[in-house]
Amino acid sequence: MGINISNFLASKSQNRKMGQFQDLDHLDGLAVSSVSANLYNSKRDDLVMFYFRDGANFASVYTQSKILSENIKWNLSQKTQKIFSLIINTRNANSFTGEQGFKSMQHLAEMISKQLTDKQKEDEDDPKIIKSKNIIFGCTGTIGEKFPEDKIKLKIPNLIKNIKYTQNKYIWMKAALGIMTTDTQPKMAMEECKIGGTPVKIYGIAKGSGMIYPNMATTLGYIFTDANISNEVLKKLLKKNIENTFNAISCDGDTSTNDMITIFSTGKAKNSLITTLNDKKIKFFDESLNNVLLNLAKRVVADGEGAKKFVTININNAKTEYDAKKIGFSIANSPLVKTAIAGEDPNWGRIIMAVGKSGVDINLNKLSIKFGDLMIVQKGKIFNQYNESDAVNYMKSSDIKVNVDVGIGKKSFTVYTMDLTKEYININSDYRS
Amino acid sequence: MGINISNFLASKSQNRKMGQFQDLDHLDGLAVSSVSANLYNSKRDDLVMFYFRDGANFASVYTQSKILSENIKWNLSQKTQKIFSLIINTRNANSFTGEQGFKSMQHLAEMISKQLTDKQKEDEDDPKIIKSKNIIFGCTGTIGEKFPEDKIKLKIPNLIKNIKYTQNKYIWMKAALGIMTTDTQPKMAMEECKIGGTPVKIYGIAKGSGMIYPNMATTLGYIFTDANISNEVLKKLLKKNIENTFNAISCDGDTSTNDMITIFSTGKAKNSLITTLNDKKIKFFDESLNNVLLNLAKRVVADGEGAKKFVTININNAKTEYDAKKIGFSIANSPLVKTAIAGEDPNWGRIIMAVGKSGVDINLNKLSIKFGDLMIVQKGKIFNQYNESDAVNYMKSSDIKVNVDVGIGKKSFTVYTMDLTKEYININSDYRS
Repeated sequence: MGINISNFLASKSQNRKMGQFQDLDHLDGLAVSSVSANLYNSKRDDLVMFYFRDGANFASVYTQSKILSENIKWNLSQKTQKIFSLIINTRNANSFTGEQGFKSMQHLAEMISKQLTDKQKEDEDDPKIIKSKNIIFGCTGTIGEKFPEDKIKLKIPNLIKNIKYTQNKYIWMKAALGIMTTDTQPKMAMEECKIGGTPVKIYGIAKGSGMIYPNMATTLGYIFTDANISNEVLKKLLKKNIENTFNAISCDGDTSTNDMITIFSTGKAKNSLITTLNDKKIKFFDESLNNVLLNLAKRVVADGEGAKKFVTININNAKTEYDAKKIGFSIANSPLVKTAIAGEDPNWGRIIMAVGKSGVDINLNKLSIKFGDLMIVQKGKIFNQYNESDAVNYMKSSDIKVNVDVGIGKKSFTVYTMDLTKEYININSDYRS
Repeated sequence: MGINISNFLASKSQNRKMGQFQDLDHLDGLAVSSVSANLYNSKRDDLVMFYFRDGANFASVYTQSKILSENIKWNLSQKTQKIFSLIINTRNANSFTGEQGFKSMQHLAEMISKQLTDKQKEDEDDPKIIKSKNIIFGCTGTIGEKFPEDKIKLKIPNLIKNIKYTQNKYIWMKAALGIMTTDTQPKMAMEECKIGGTPVKIYGIAKGSGMIYPNMATTLGYIFTDANISNEVLKKLLKKNIENTFNAISCDGDTSTNDMITIFSTGKAKNSLITTLNDKKIKFFDESLNNVLLNLAKRVVADGEGAKKFVTININNAKTEYDAKKIGFSIANSPLVKTAIAGEDPNWGRIIMAVGKSGVDINLNKLSIKFGDLMIVQKGKIFNQYNESDAVNYMKSSDIKVNVDVGIGKKSFTVYTMDLTKEYININSDYRS
């Protein structure tokens, strides 16, 4: 193993930017397995399987790119109510691989569904027949390289043999490490809550934003719950909660062809099935799901390429949430703002610039800007007690908050990003070979 | 003088990226003057005046930012058919300076118009009365600092005393240097053409994109012609020709509150007044104006912060010009593409990524990509004779061409940008003091 799991577990208190890892435990109805398929020509795990022995309800959101990787095309084309397995490989994005890439998905889905059906016959009292359409894939890595179908096929028997029906923190850590490309930290989060009187778990893992070799920072996020929720409600919950979590982060404004967030529910907690978002019993689950997604999304940003600082941009009192989001991302994606933060320079003029270029109508006389609690600009004027040395001190923190009060409405949005450092250039301009 | 004009003129053949400076000469109806108002606390010129003794027709385009600097607000609020003077200061953007900043413009316009009226009485047979509304301003520098009205006022008499009615290459170079902030090169361009049988000149100077102290890379561009053209036609010509010149460049995707391009025509060439864009006599002027604007715009990019490579992105055969432009800027503004170019890495996967994230509908099977003349992707597949070592060699050039053939229409657009280097981070993350 190239990566030592115990070391990661032991070092968890050192994860200064995002706090401790949360220890994920057993989640009923789910099985996890990881192996090395030698995709990196090393022994690190690069192939991870999530297996739902009784199937799982599910919902996905995918990249907004107009160019989709072949695994995402596969996932979108399978019409099914239940997923039995999600397989994730790293090192190859299966993007711009054309027919060969799509056929590889088909071949693998056929092979995996057949072998899992055999496993059903061995392990289950009431064995199910698993079909290709019950299998979905996550891929991340280099674009445009031939998809390593044969290498992966060779390891499918091992992957299935390794399946454990009971998880513990080591198994989760192994899976979270197995989906990393050049992330420097595995990303896990969990919440527990109740639906009606029934306790349920929401576990999640993600990867994203660290890369040296691959062509881009794909974001993958997978959420698992034992709650009993219909596909339709899962879809609505995911769409709703993705907006202010994974859709509120930006590392460099670039978008992968492979982005994928999926939620699976095994139903094993046995609450009565939730079939409408209006069901009041879903309230705490809704909030907890948001927490898990936000926790993971923040971990992706905190591990952003070359990041030294975690930056939270709060836009308050805009006319619409859409306006607040536009302003937030205009600031978050501005190289001039991000380099100023890297340089610990309280260069608020660049915030003004980014507000202006967002295209949102602004009343300058109502605009206020704070760094953390430090008032910088108040209603369009430099705050009369503004003291640059306080601001300089504030910028030394590794956790920077930019608070913009637009002052012309009641809507808010928060965006998360990181600073733009020389290390980002190092990582991304190093020649691939 | 902090800057030695003779050195710049002597070193012109060393301007490797953009070729030689063009020597600008006399343009009838125009006078030029520059002084140091000590805005940088050094002796460099930082205040430049263009004076039209008989007035000039004119047209301007300004920043698309929703936050406008006070000089641009002034310029927009003056209703007049003739401009008698344009005054440009550096070091202070007069942006986010509120009422004080606007009033400074008013005070300066009053002072300048009065002193120029006095000069008319001295110098002209038929003296004109110049009003505040006949004066416009260009400002560039730091945002949010009090506008140095008094320092500038102090030097207005000198500025007017220094007015020369005849220009030569030294006077133009002095003016082009005088409007620089931390540009490393002055930017000048010229063309000569005919309107009907009358020879006319089109001269231009610009600044932009180099900065260490200022808050952003303001682009200023000023075009002067002795042609006789109505305000209405100047407006249409400028709007039309700005689209594929200054609106086709991007250094970092950030937009200043101060951007300003203005064209002035003195009419001294005495061609019969052009009052409609349909006038066929305007054809060569139209083309020559485009050349001057494109030449200046390219010089701004070539001098972009930290730029080591000049990058031309040609998008061909898109459905609409709007689509071609969207794809072009998606590539030009992608940090992942720009860092790959800095690293001399022919990482075409990132071009694919940027095409995908542009939001334009793509048919992958028709998409082709070339670096220069090297075919990389042909109709959605890696070109069968693609040889990475050729591509690696190509990327070593300081002049990179990315050619994308979308293959689904007939429209084209070309975008100009530069690579994203560690030097960009150095320049922009250094603390201001």
